[in-house]
Amino acid sequence: MISEFELIGLFNHIGSKYNEQNGIVLSPGDDCAVIDLPLPIVTSIDSSVCDIHFPHNAPAKDIGYRSVAVALSDIAAMGCQPRGFSVSITCSNKDVIWYQELAEGFNDISNEFQISLIGGDITSGPLNINVVVYGTPYNSNFLKRSGARKGDFICISKPIGRAKKGLEDFTKNNLESIFLNDYLRPKPQIELGKKISDFATSCIDISDGLLADLNHILRSSKVGANIFLDDIPITSNINDVNAGDDYDLCFTIPSTMMEDSFYKIGEVTEDLGIKFSSNKGYDVSIKGFDHFKNA
Amino acid sequence: MISEFELIGLFNHIGSKYNEQNGIVLSPGDDCAVIDLPLPIVTSIDSSVCDIHFPHNAPAKDIGYRSVAVALSDIAAMGCQPRGFSVSITCSNKDVIWYQELAEGFNDISNEFQISLIGGDITSGPLNINVVVYGTPYNSNFLKRSGARKGDFICISKPIGRAKKGLEDFTKNNLESIFLNDYLRPKPQIELGKKISDFATSCIDISDGLLADLNHILRSSKVGANIFLDDIPITSNINDVNAGDDYDLCFTIPSTMMEDSFYKIGEVTEDLGIKFSSNKGYDVSIKGFDHFKNA
Repeated sequence: MISEFELIGLFNHIGSKYNEQNGIVLSPGDDCAVIDLPLPIVTSIDSSVCDIHFPHNAPAKDIGYRSVAVALSDIAAMGCQPRGFSVSITCSNKDVIWYQELAEGFNDISNEFQISLIGGDITSGPLNINVVVYGTPYNSNFLKRSGARKGDFICISKPIGRAKKGLEDFTKNNLESIFLNDYLRPKPQIELGKKISDFATSCIDISDGLLADLNHILRSSKVGANIFLDDIPITSNINDVNAGDDYDLCFTIPSTMMEDSFYKIGEVTEDLGIKFSSNKGYDVSIKGFDHFKNA
Repeated sequence: MISEFELIGLFNHIGSKYNEQNGIVLSPGDDCAVIDLPLPIVTSIDSSVCDIHFPHNAPAKDIGYRSVAVALSDIAAMGCQPRGFSVSITCSNKDVIWYQELAEGFNDISNEFQISLIGGDITSGPLNINVVVYGTPYNSNFLKRSGARKGDFICISKPIGRAKKGLEDFTKNNLESIFLNDYLRPKPQIELGKKISDFATSCIDISDGLLADLNHILRSSKVGANIFLDDIPITSNINDVNAGDDYDLCFTIPSTMMEDSFYKIGEVTEDLGIKFSSNKGYDVSIKGFDHFKNA
């Protein structure tokens, strides 16, 4: 049987070639990792629980990639640059190949974003992967949820509902679906976050559903919104506005900064709450995913 | 039934009065927390899994305190000052009082070390609490495992085996035991770490057992040790050298820095491996806890 220390060996050097450029001066093998950069550190933790955040039969490689990707999405939402990640793995699997594939997934995302695995923990128990991400602002600014102002355009960058469709197709064993990777390998929008970090007035990632997450922006900013349902790019139907797992960003910008690559879905208003309009007869309500009510 | 957002409300403001002194410029309620200090950041993650790191019937208050304490012990081992912590909770309990008590435990340790809860995540699933800690060096130095030198004294600061005894007594429902809190509420040795941060040549916390963790120091430092088993302060018997969960520090110091409050248990040698000596006939081998072989 594989030992804990052999397992640790699989993960110890992932992305270590990126340590220097990211100010990682001490990485796995000590009690703590050390990040030494003359910049503020932004950080977040995200858990990926088996059969909640991914199906138990998802490939280990994708579980690894996805668990880091969803955490990096929070760095993207702050308009920041990723610098490293830590991983805490709880798993009762005894199959070394499964861990090798998991490590491969971590390695893929490490190379994609040029960051290293800087620390972690491994324990036997029900499958649960917690990823901590660390980043720094690209400029002096980081994006928050609280800056949306009356008249700002509300934007997203991609059709919503893609991940929901991907999960449905995976569950039906439709492995040719073009949506699979939207669920299994979501792309954290780091480049988009960087691009808008100079001028967006607020930002959030829409992992809990577009409307639920937009609502967080509106509440934090003490404003409301007019949402034009017909303008929202959807995958299956208008209920995609409440679909989770799309790791796109929803952000508000001054109208002067609008550009073709953004989808404008509405405008910020002084009146609180969300007013929906549609010429197609669309009708929706806000239904974010609640882990304790929906589970 | 309680909602995820009501639960988050229980944890959102824990220790927020300590944000400013610790450079926490953005705490729960955004996609990331932000730590802005002109110092390197040391960080570590530790998972506390039900029935592995604590018994399922442990009081929620103690589970909360303990899960943060064991993570802070890694900050202590680096000789650093704690600045904040994040918590990722996976739990299927529906009882709001349980969460209130858990929050109380977080609150206790937050006040004890003057740090705030800066971020987190909450999901329904098998009980698993992951705590990320953030700290900074007290001076320009942080302690590592790799600096032990021939002739250094090897020290600990407290009798070992206390936590093992505490867990045994808890399991036997011997709730009057003076050892209970050694298991349920271990004290991270932040003050000790600060004290030795100027002169210790290496340091580690001994959560996996004194000998197993000392071995990490010796391997990282490419040295060996003579250990005087009779000099090790024990609680039950000499097998306490392999007992886990004692969140004391094991450290090496130049002989000139020895003082009464340290227990000297041996000396660093050029020859690799550990040589044990005892006039009492003690005989031991190294048996660290392996989550995959022992579980």
